[in-house]
Amino acid sequence: MTEAVLKYLEENRESLLGKLEEFLSIPSVSTDGAHKQDVLKAGTFVANYLKEIGFQSVEIIETGGHPLVYGEWLEAKDAPTALFYGHYDVQPADPYELWDSEPFEPTVRNGKLFARGASDDKGQVFMHLAVCEAYMKTEGRLPVNVKVCIEGEEEIGSENLVPFLKNHKDKLAADFALISDSGMVAKGQPTMLYGLKGFTGLEVTVKGPNRDLHSGLYGGAVKNPAMALSHILASLKNDQEVVTVPGFYDDVEALPAEERQLMNEAPGENYPESVGIPQTSSEQGYTVNEHIMARPTLEINGMYSGYQGEGTKTIIPSTATAKITCRLVPGQDPQTIQDKIVDYIESHVPDGVEVSVKREALSAKAYKVDPDHPLLQKAADQLSEAFGKETVFVRLGGSIPVVESIDQLFNIPVVLLGFGTPEDNLHSPNESFPLDHFHKGMEVLVNYYHDVAQVK
Amino acid sequence: MTEAVLKYLEENRESLLGKLEEFLSIPSVSTDGAHKQDVLKAGTFVANYLKEIGFQSVEIIETGGHPLVYGEWLEAKDAPTALFYGHYDVQPADPYELWDSEPFEPTVRNGKLFARGASDDKGQVFMHLAVCEAYMKTEGRLPVNVKVCIEGEEEIGSENLVPFLKNHKDKLAADFALISDSGMVAKGQPTMLYGLKGFTGLEVTVKGPNRDLHSGLYGGAVKNPAMALSHILASLKNDQEVVTVPGFYDDVEALPAEERQLMNEAPGENYPESVGIPQTSSEQGYTVNEHIMARPTLEINGMYSGYQGEGTKTIIPSTATAKITCRLVPGQDPQTIQDKIVDYIESHVPDGVEVSVKREALSAKAYKVDPDHPLLQKAADQLSEAFGKETVFVRLGGSIPVVESIDQLFNIPVVLLGFGTPEDNLHSPNESFPLDHFHKGMEVLVNYYHDVAQVK
Ligand SMILES: [Zn+2]
Ligand SMILES: [Zn+2]
Repeated sequence: MTEAVLKYLEENRESLLGKLEEFLSIPSVSTDGAHKQDVLKAGTFVANYLKEIGFQSVEIIETGGHPLVYGEWLEAKDAPTALFYGHYDVQPADPYELWDSEPFEPTVRNGKLFARGASDDKGQVFMHLAVCEAYMKTEGRLPVNVKVCIEGEEEIGSENLVPFLKNHKDKLAADFALISDSGMVAKGQPTMLYGLKGFTGLEVTVKGPNRDLHSGLYGGAVKNPAMALSHILASLKNDQEVVTVPGFYDDVEALPAEERQLMNEAPGENYPESVGIPQTSSEQGYTVNEHIMARPTLEINGMYSGYQGEGTKTIIPSTATAKITCRLVPGQDPQTIQDKIVDYIESHVPDGVEVSVKREALSAKAYKVDPDHPLLQKAADQLSEAFGKETVFVRLGGSIPVVESIDQLFNIPVVLLGFGTPEDNLHSPNESFPLDHFHKGMEVLVNYYHDVAQVK
Repeated sequence: MTEAVLKYLEENRESLLGKLEEFLSIPSVSTDGAHKQDVLKAGTFVANYLKEIGFQSVEIIETGGHPLVYGEWLEAKDAPTALFYGHYDVQPADPYELWDSEPFEPTVRNGKLFARGASDDKGQVFMHLAVCEAYMKTEGRLPVNVKVCIEGEEEIGSENLVPFLKNHKDKLAADFALISDSGMVAKGQPTMLYGLKGFTGLEVTVKGPNRDLHSGLYGGAVKNPAMALSHILASLKNDQEVVTVPGFYDDVEALPAEERQLMNEAPGENYPESVGIPQTSSEQGYTVNEHIMARPTLEINGMYSGYQGEGTKTIIPSTATAKITCRLVPGQDPQTIQDKIVDYIESHVPDGVEVSVKREALSAKAYKVDPDHPLLQKAADQLSEAFGKETVFVRLGGSIPVVESIDQLFNIPVVLLGFGTPEDNLHSPNESFPLDHFHKGMEVLVNYYHDVAQVK
């Protein structure tokens, strides 16, 4: 039933690729004020494309920052409505000298399309638009209702997205959300992401003397803030990678044996080699895959105190600071976890120093959708079919804030249909996207749009 | 018997102060290449003064850096020989705007002479030279033999001093060394320093992954180097300020009850307030004074890992580093202590990371002289007499490398006759030296030179 649509994509390969290259040529670097007009140009490209395809109510919505592009096609009576989210802004391309071809002059080499944004996220946004074009040009309609929301500020924190979603809850109401801004666990290995971690963070500062002191004249009178901080940090996690803050694991949802098995079967990175460590370390009682995907973590992200230059400076530092973030799993409330850590630290202040804790305001709950949900199963089936390989179901140790926001605001399943690969060099020089993922991915989308029309 | 000498100093107060001001006017900043000629000029001032006084074999000795000035007067048959050490270089004076008068335009205000070097060490060097002048002008001789060695690189590490001392061991041979480059525990409180701490140092680096990693994608697989470092550091000292490295205290000389009492009676800083801490911290079983003066310490001087900027960066840092120095007491060998710490760290490397330890090459043994030694007792008596107050005997938590070098090379007592005060602002803007310490100090020196002529 989708042959004509697929044929359209097949026959228009070159022109579609050309159109994507046009999109990628716009240096829509959202973080750089000098590219403000380019960001707008990329948004306009999206809006114009939506209009060409036949979307209604297409708007370039001012936000105070870079605009959001909205469009909708709602004529699929009785079919479900998808809220499609993506972003048209890109990371900066510097250092330019490390690129083998110009970041904003898309180039095909070795079956990959090289350009900033090729994978993250212009390439993947474009796939959805091209599939919609193919449907409209061949069948004159889409199989499902689609509300498209493409922002221009993802790479700078999506500051204006959540207020927009909040203020237009009715307009944006949908049965599920669809996002293609992620990747597969390996090139050619179809992957369904069914869970993400949440996070919370804080910064601990141990304040000792009011200035750096001579370690000879004051050593023996004054508690060393760097040592006090080390004692505090060492009390948060033991050498078996178990977080020792009381109650940290209280609300963690149990991990069923079948899910653990799935996780352990998931293909992954060849860890000790890939990152150059003597051996992996994971929580006592859990495998690396289980810990990464489904167990919470507490990490020191940065730490500083006293003298950092060459050689020696014999001081007792005035202060010592550590930045800490936790990745959270379903069941854990970010605020509660932050409270528990802060309470624990504040109730174990070493004598002779003061300790202040700065709470990181940004936080997110973990996200998880039932992997057996038909919306995911249908996607998995189409991925397996197109890529000729069984789809693996994985949970990600990272967080995607927009997913948490959509989950919280709309309480709908979020389907994360990512076509990127670990070799795409996101946010790095020589970003690329494999052309076979581009073409097979559109095939998946054509069939998926068709299949989910039946899901109620 | 010293009346004439004291009278000479009295009668020449103004001209001697004028001559000191001339010495202080030379900006002999050893660290600043732009002042190379000024440093030489100050050295020449010293050499010329020595010649005027009647010293023999006066030389300005090239060192590759700033020159050393040497001179000797050896005609006191049967009397002991003193090796007098000092330095004619000074710390930089910036920030200039924080000085109330120009650093190199000596100014008297409120009974203090303000100038860079007034206390450290030109003022105190000058006192000895003026006293020698007074003796020569009145009695035509000095009571003791004096070998004078004044260097120009103290403030930049005395790099060329030790080789010079080593290469001229016979020429410099003396019965005791005399140094006035320190201070009293309080203004007007005569103080005899009879011990200094030694030191040793090292830098520990925990190496984790070969780059900073995404804490979501890798948290659960990779040991966090900052956390591993915290565990290592926390294992070196407990919260009772006891160093927990095995054998750290093995060779520490016992502290006799009488010495502990002396230490506890010594006047000192009003600690919690003076440095702005909630309370002092000292080694379990020892008072603050005992710990500072006579118990070894282990301090973290600096620590760094990962992200130190504003806000959050959710990484697992690639490495974490801490700089550590220990202050050592008599009995402890710096090399042995360094070995013990390195061995302990290297035999407790957490799984999943590598640890490397860089040994700090510079080290020093502690120095201690018997406080009952007649060379010290005579100095104490004269100090008590001149300042009208009982002299306190203290050991210093800091180190004076030249003392350790003289001790090791010549194995002679070092008399530390310091006339500075804690209010002198050494190495800071508005360095000063109290005029009454200048005058009373010279009185002490006159009588001390006289008294030690009898010491065998
Ligand atoms: Zn993205
Ligand atoms: Zn000095």
